[in-house]
Amino acid sequence: MSIQCSVFIATSLDGFIARTNGAIDWLSLDTDSVDSQQEDYGYQQFFDSVDALVMGRNTYEIILAFPTWPYDRKPVIVLSQGHPNVPASLQDRIEIMAAAPDTVMQHCAERGFHRIYIDGGQTIQRFLRMGLIHDITLTRIPILIGEGIPLFGALADDVRLEHLSTQVFAQGLVQSQYRIHSGD
Amino acid sequence: MSIQCSVFIATSLDGFIARTNGAIDWLSLDTDSVDSQQEDYGYQQFFDSVDALVMGRNTYEIILAFPTWPYDRKPVIVLSQGHPNVPASLQDRIEIMAAAPDTVMQHCAERGFHRIYIDGGQTIQRFLRMGLIHDITLTRIPILIGEGIPLFGALADDVRLEHLSTQVFAQGLVQSQYRIHSGD
Repeated sequence: MSIQCSVFIATSLDGFIARTNGAIDWLSLDTDSVDSQQEDYGYQQFFDSVDALVMGRNTYEIILAFPTWPYDRKPVIVLSQGHPNVPASLQDRIEIMAAAPDTVMQHCAERGFHRIYIDGGQTIQRFLRMGLIHDITLTRIPILIGEGIPLFGALADDVRLEHLSTQVFAQGLVQSQYRIHSGD
Repeated sequence: MSIQCSVFIATSLDGFIARTNGAIDWLSLDTDSVDSQQEDYGYQQFFDSVDALVMGRNTYEIILAFPTWPYDRKPVIVLSQGHPNVPASLQDRIEIMAAAPDTVMQHCAERGFHRIYIDGGQTIQRFLRMGLIHDITLTRIPILIGEGIPLFGALADDVRLEHLSTQVFAQGLVQSQYRIHSGD
């Protein structure tokens, strides 16, 4: 199975992807000085490179509450044991699955996907624990928020990463790309 | 009081400074390929710039167990409510204080210190919570260890940092320098 599972995510310097209540207000450091041509930190290029997204129910429901659905027509697999609400307008591109990560990957392979965008703290952690994450693009926001939802969690073993590149953006965002070899 | 409190520390990519038992074996990524002239990641330059060190008892006792005392003749203030063992050979340079961070800083000012190296997870967190940290040099080791002693902890408020510089070293270590303005 030659599917790449990739993570593209921002954290506070103390490693959180959101406050405890899910808020990501702290991601926007300085709204006064937004350029007319806004920097996207490589997001669009990454997004264009994936065939589908996999995320947990919590992340899905946060994104569903956005004013507009941000993933165009790209397939989104939502991992949930329950029945999250899927608006009629999105039913052609959202799939609810209750399966384990390896089964999800098998399903993605059968659908012909090559690269999957894995999103959401718990989902990323589950895929990491199973050795299924191929690469991580991690952007560090220069702020400490003290507590929140952590990106990383417990692991059975150490996971070594290969550093590929690091880039500094305006406002002090530091973005590093890592490759994980454990899943090879 | 014009004292700079500075942090120079390495963490795993998931934010730990040591394993739960204090072990830092994971800091050495690849002992097979150590150069004859070993890279010190700017440590000696940083060390030479500080007048003294402040650390907690846990860190002190880990360092005391090293084969050689690594801080030359530099004054070391150990924060402890108790009576940690101080070998006779170190009694001229180690001071035990049970005081709060601001009192420690007052004491350092009276001794004419300008820049202090704050070390150890709990001590760094206490100084951060009181707005006493001036700058942080943070080196990210490309490994996830899953659990351990975290560098950062709870805060009363968000702490915004100014990114000063980022440098990539061999083996994928990413070192960023940040300035904190809250303590100004």
